[in-house]
Amino acid sequence: MANDVRRPSGRAPEQPREIRLTRDYTRHAEGSVLVEFGDTKVLCNASVEPGVPRWLRGKGQGWVTAEYGMLPRATHTRGGREATRGKQGGRTLEIQRLIGRSLRAAVNLKKLGEFTITVDCDVIQADGGTRTASITGGCVALVDAIRYLQRNKLIKGDPFKQLVSSISVGLFKGVPVVDLDYPEDSAADTDMNVVMAEAGSLIEVQGTAEKGSFSRAELNAMLELAENAGAQLFEHQREALGIPR
Amino acid sequence: MANDVRRPSGRAPEQPREIRLTRDYTRHAEGSVLVEFGDTKVLCNASVEPGVPRWLRGKGQGWVTAEYGMLPRATHTRGGREATRGKQGGRTLEIQRLIGRSLRAAVNLKKLGEFTITVDCDVIQADGGTRTASITGGCVALVDAIRYLQRNKLIKGDPFKQLVSSISVGLFKGVPVVDLDYPEDSAADTDMNVVMAEAGSLIEVQGTAEKGSFSRAELNAMLELAENAGAQLFEHQREALGIPR
Amino acid sequence: MANDVRRPSGRAPEQPREIRLTRDYTRHAEGSVLVEFGDTKVLCNASVEPGVPRWLRGKGQGWVTAEYGMLPRATHTRGGREATRGKQGGRTLEIQRLIGRSLRAAVNLKKLGEFTITVDCDVIQADGGTRTASITGGCVALVDAIRYLQRNKLIKGDPFKQLVSSISVGLFKGVPVVDLDYPEDSAADTDMNVVMAEAGSLIEVQGTAEKGSFSRAELNAMLELAENAGAQLFEHQREALGIPR
Amino acid sequence: MANDVRRPSGRAPEQPREIRLTRDYTRHAEGSVLVEFGDTKVLCNASVEPGVPRWLRGKGQGWVTAEYGMLPRATHTRGGREATRGKQGGRTLEIQRLIGRSLRAAVNLKKLGEFTITVDCDVIQADGGTRTASITGGCVALVDAIRYLQRNKLIKGDPFKQLVSSISVGLFKGVPVVDLDYPEDSAADTDMNVVMAEAGSLIEVQGTAEKGSFSRAELNAMLELAENAGAQLFEHQREALGIPR
Amino acid sequence: MANDVRRPSGRAPEQPREIRLTRDYTRHAEGSVLVEFGDTKVLCNASVEPGVPRWLRGKGQGWVTAEYGMLPRATHTRGGREATRGKQGGRTLEIQRLIGRSLRAAVNLKKLGEFTITVDCDVIQADGGTRTASITGGCVALVDAIRYLQRNKLIKGDPFKQLVSSISVGLFKGVPVVDLDYPEDSAADTDMNVVMAEAGSLIEVQGTAEKGSFSRAELNAMLELAENAGAQLFEHQREALGIPR
Amino acid sequence: MANDVRRPSGRAPEQPREIRLTRDYTRHAEGSVLVEFGDTKVLCNASVEPGVPRWLRGKGQGWVTAEYGMLPRATHTRGGREATRGKQGGRTLEIQRLIGRSLRAAVNLKKLGEFTITVDCDVIQADGGTRTASITGGCVALVDAIRYLQRNKLIKGDPFKQLVSSISVGLFKGVPVVDLDYPEDSAADTDMNVVMAEAGSLIEVQGTAEKGSFSRAELNAMLELAENAGAQLFEHQREALGIPR
Repeated sequence: MANDVRRPSGRAPEQPREIRLTRDYTRHAEGSVLVEFGDTKVLCNASVEPGVPRWLRGKGQGWVTAEYGMLPRATHTRGGREATRGKQGGRTLEIQRLIGRSLRAAVNLKKLGEFTITVDCDVIQADGGTRTASITGGCVALVDAIRYLQRNKLIKGDPFKQLVSSISVGLFKGVPVVDLDYPEDSAADTDMNVVMAEAGSLIEVQGTAEKGSFSRAELNAMLELAENAGAQLFEHQREALGIPR
Repeated sequence: MANDVRRPSGRAPEQPREIRLTRDYTRHAEGSVLVEFGDTKVLCNASVEPGVPRWLRGKGQGWVTAEYGMLPRATHTRGGREATRGKQGGRTLEIQRLIGRSLRAAVNLKKLGEFTITVDCDVIQADGGTRTASITGGCVALVDAIRYLQRNKLIKGDPFKQLVSSISVGLFKGVPVVDLDYPEDSAADTDMNVVMAEAGSLIEVQGTAEKGSFSRAELNAMLELAENAGAQLFEHQREALGIPR
Repeated sequence: MANDVRRPSGRAPEQPREIRLTRDYTRHAEGSVLVEFGDTKVLCNASVEPGVPRWLRGKGQGWVTAEYGMLPRATHTRGGREATRGKQGGRTLEIQRLIGRSLRAAVNLKKLGEFTITVDCDVIQADGGTRTASITGGCVALVDAIRYLQRNKLIKGDPFKQLVSSISVGLFKGVPVVDLDYPEDSAADTDMNVVMAEAGSLIEVQGTAEKGSFSRAELNAMLELAENAGAQLFEHQREALGIPR
Repeated sequence: MANDVRRPSGRAPEQPREIRLTRDYTRHAEGSVLVEFGDTKVLCNASVEPGVPRWLRGKGQGWVTAEYGMLPRATHTRGGREATRGKQGGRTLEIQRLIGRSLRAAVNLKKLGEFTITVDCDVIQADGGTRTASITGGCVALVDAIRYLQRNKLIKGDPFKQLVSSISVGLFKGVPVVDLDYPEDSAADTDMNVVMAEAGSLIEVQGTAEKGSFSRAELNAMLELAENAGAQLFEHQREALGIPR
Repeated sequence: MANDVRRPSGRAPEQPREIRLTRDYTRHAEGSVLVEFGDTKVLCNASVEPGVPRWLRGKGQGWVTAEYGMLPRATHTRGGREATRGKQGGRTLEIQRLIGRSLRAAVNLKKLGEFTITVDCDVIQADGGTRTASITGGCVALVDAIRYLQRNKLIKGDPFKQLVSSISVGLFKGVPVVDLDYPEDSAADTDMNVVMAEAGSLIEVQGTAEKGSFSRAELNAMLELAENAGAQLFEHQREALGIPR
Repeated sequence: MANDVRRPSGRAPEQPREIRLTRDYTRHAEGSVLVEFGDTKVLCNASVEPGVPRWLRGKGQGWVTAEYGMLPRATHTRGGREATRGKQGGRTLEIQRLIGRSLRAAVNLKKLGEFTITVDCDVIQADGGTRTASITGGCVALVDAIRYLQRNKLIKGDPFKQLVSSISVGLFKGVPVVDLDYPEDSAADTDMNVVMAEAGSLIEVQGTAEKGSFSRAELNAMLELAENAGAQLFEHQREALGIPR
């Protein structure tokens, strides 16, 4: 492992891109956040709707779900519009299932009452890490949606449990690096997405060796990087939401 | 006809909303324009791709087409994602056919060579007039895409023919008004979308009496308003593109 | 503008094709009309069903809607069957939305009670003007369906408001002409569909410059032709329905 | 078995409905036949297109296929439009497969050359027996399409092999009857569709006991009726086509 | 007709393949039977669910239906997965309609109560005759599902009416043969599927002349073979189910 | 962490279920393996087809992909057939993407030549761990398909790189356990699927905290269990394939 490898982005292995979280980005959603991880820009809109899916009715709890999409020209070459093709692709479904699962870890569904919060994550511009940005920004939009419910006295308690954030890590030419942009991601041997709880523990780990395989030691080195970046992400989220440390 | 009717927006009957055209809004598209008609915000990305649809092959000409979409929470209440429902609705198809037809009037397809320019119009925030904003902003993105082709010497001549813009007009409590926002549109008796060429002539007129009907005199009064607003739209387009009057 | 242009059909500019309205064309529908605009033949069947769409329930009103289809070999070359392709095309959806909107102008939905009338317009043979024929014939079928409701004492009042008819006009070699057949439509510079109320006012105007653009003067000249033809269409409708002038 | 049972139609057990075959019913198709079995009316349009399906390419033979549809209000109550539902139902697919198979028995595909003839059978009005009428009328349209190919010297030999016709038979209150209309079909114990070649032999037999079961003797009695009716159908086809006996 | 023709399988014309019925093949279904007709293997799972389809509600009766599928590599060359293509093909729909209709002949739906039994027939390995094996094995699974309902006292009476089985017959080089495997089926002139009731009568007969046609005498010869094989199938079913003769 | 927790299956935390790999389970596929992890049974059929997907053409390499399906009654309650619903669900797509990615790690695609191997994994009976069983059994089927290519001299070199296997691990009442069956999986706090290469390194790790979260120490304890079980899986694979250690 050669730590002096040069990342295409010129960043140090442990250095994430510049993170920005802009609340109230659009007018209609109960929570609306533009999240930027460098050149990756995702609009996360959290919508509150009364009622829950059929299989949850009458259980006295709420639901949090997510949908993910990419504008056709968010990428280098134009991708077909999924609405035109008539279905969401496997990658899209896989990502939105991950986002939904991750965001549910932020909420006590029992205290949410019979409301559904849908977090739409639409990628305006893509440069790697759209799913980790979606989770990180989506969590802030979700908190705003919960605050909307509280402010309008639609629920009594506080269903908010903990902040959730996510970052990618990978092995680039054998070196563990954090927050891969598109050129780095394309060239990486291993790519891993880590979803973390504020307390420092793990909610989801998805690591894939695109080429070859990776060792337990490499896995742990990558998780180390993710944990450090996570601390910064939580700081950004708290600052955006005005939550004291 | 009572000209002293008060529009919900407080605007004078002949006063369009504030128009903004921001070029280079995203990084990847050959033309990328954020168009704002007041609170209506549409991202228009023009993509250049080699080749033409099957039915045009070998005819030595190019093609311009458009696709239209609305982010699920661009509106007051969340609309279902068309990719999830598995098809584009009738309204979407109708609008994107209109945008495509209108933008083709801006281009000499023979001079475009065997390239296809697809203009994606995705509504970030909706407050009435999304199709007219799409045409107006899409035309600027289209011009940028043509300039890209010229700058990169992919085509020889200049396929740009004329600017195209669009505005809505309507009868609000019997009074002709221009550029209706959502509350005005919902309450209007008649709604008309007008697509204009820079020379002052008409490319498309679509007027619908939502309630009752309208007379030829009312039609002409509405077209008068559209023509005046059109002059302002062309001015905005020229200014954004740095085209002298 | 040269009024001595020769139309492919040999008709004078202001002369519509022969119009025929045959009631009770099939046996099962509450209203069944074969409408012929020259060689264009459309079967318009109006079906009465109890109940209204979900979003209208409990509002004490009815609904009128339309569906449009073309038999695969109604045209010169065989078009794919939409049921086989698995979806209705954009053109089909656009047309059936127009027919539905137009026919609703003929009816007082409040007086219709909680019934839905669906008008199916299926093109048996196409030669231009299928949507205008559909509206004109569909209105007669609609009236028959309303009479069925009255005759069977399913409703009390009379929801019929006014006759609605439609004709196409266009600019053929610069000359305004009425009721374009397929060869004329293919060669026209501008094509406009006009939907009119019996009182002489306008319900819908959809004009498109296929090539170039059109002026306000040309628009008014075309509307003049439409108005005159409309008078004949209403006369045909009244005669078919036995309504005194 | 009581031969004195009274059929709802008042016909004798062995008496088919009045059969009518009208050629050149529409203008564009190479073969266009309206077939009527009493109140059942099906428009059969045969379209000639160059080329064959992918799996037949280069084999020097042609293809004959069929598509079947029912106008939404061909029946007592309105059936949903298959194009709107987004797929053809199982019954539709089953019927159009039967029609295609049956019509291929009329043709020597080797002599057809690399042409595809598609026979569209669209039910304008249904009163039982739409598939048998489709086969009987479709065969006449198919012959006209073959004659078109010959007349225009697009093929050399004569691919026409034999006439094919079809009729339904059934057990109505235990009595074998022929050509069941809708009320008879609904009340029948057994329903059978028989496709026959001119020579008197069988091409397809599909018998279903809707209630109970049927014996070999009953099967033979029904086939006897079909054979007799078949002779009349072939006579109608020959007369329509001007083929001497 | 030359009775000394040699079948590819080496079997005598009247000799069906080895039949095996294995009950309780999987663990979860209320009835689970692996049926083997030689190398054709179909897993038939009967599932009991409370409730009936919408159009049967409140009529105090049950429903029996079937679904059919083929594993992609059940055949010589891989067939596309229908779930991936997004729809069931016409052949699949035709077969599952036949299976459902046939199995309903085994049951008194009135005595079933408001339960639906769905029999899934999934072809693990195909070698001709998958639909006849599905009916024969599906009937055994169906009986097990009915016994489940009785054993758990979910219904009172006995809805089982009669055993139903099915076999294919055909004309192979002019000779009637029974239970065709894939090579025989591909080479046969005529192919017929026969569904029989235990009493010896017919429930469904579907005969198709793939090439040429067949005579009434040939039809009867084939039915003779089917009847004899049917006796053996019923014996297998009774033995599997422990039903005395 | 209390190691004396009692698993519903009665197994020790580190004890996988009984594993069985049956080769040549069906007749047609180039590789056909029934894999059993206890009561979970998956049929893995590897099909060899000439050619590669469009985006790989002309690159002189092959492709390995997977499709996954579940028979409707593989589970406790009947799940809808995806072919009937008209699309594969998100879970299905996610799983088949994982299987495909994992199996590609077993193959040197450059040496495969322009062939595509599709591994169909169809779940006959489900009791947890269907995706890990699919990968483990699918790898054996894949090796058989490669051997088929070699035996028939369709390729020259040996594209087989390494065995790949997979097992699930989880936290059950706080205790790391291996190879969870359905009742254990439903009750687990964390569920992780691990895909391993024969050399002991990791190909894919997907861990999800269904409730709460998990620590780095717990992650490592689970991976330890997976590694030990992996050694047994590779032993099973080698034994089935006759590969010496």
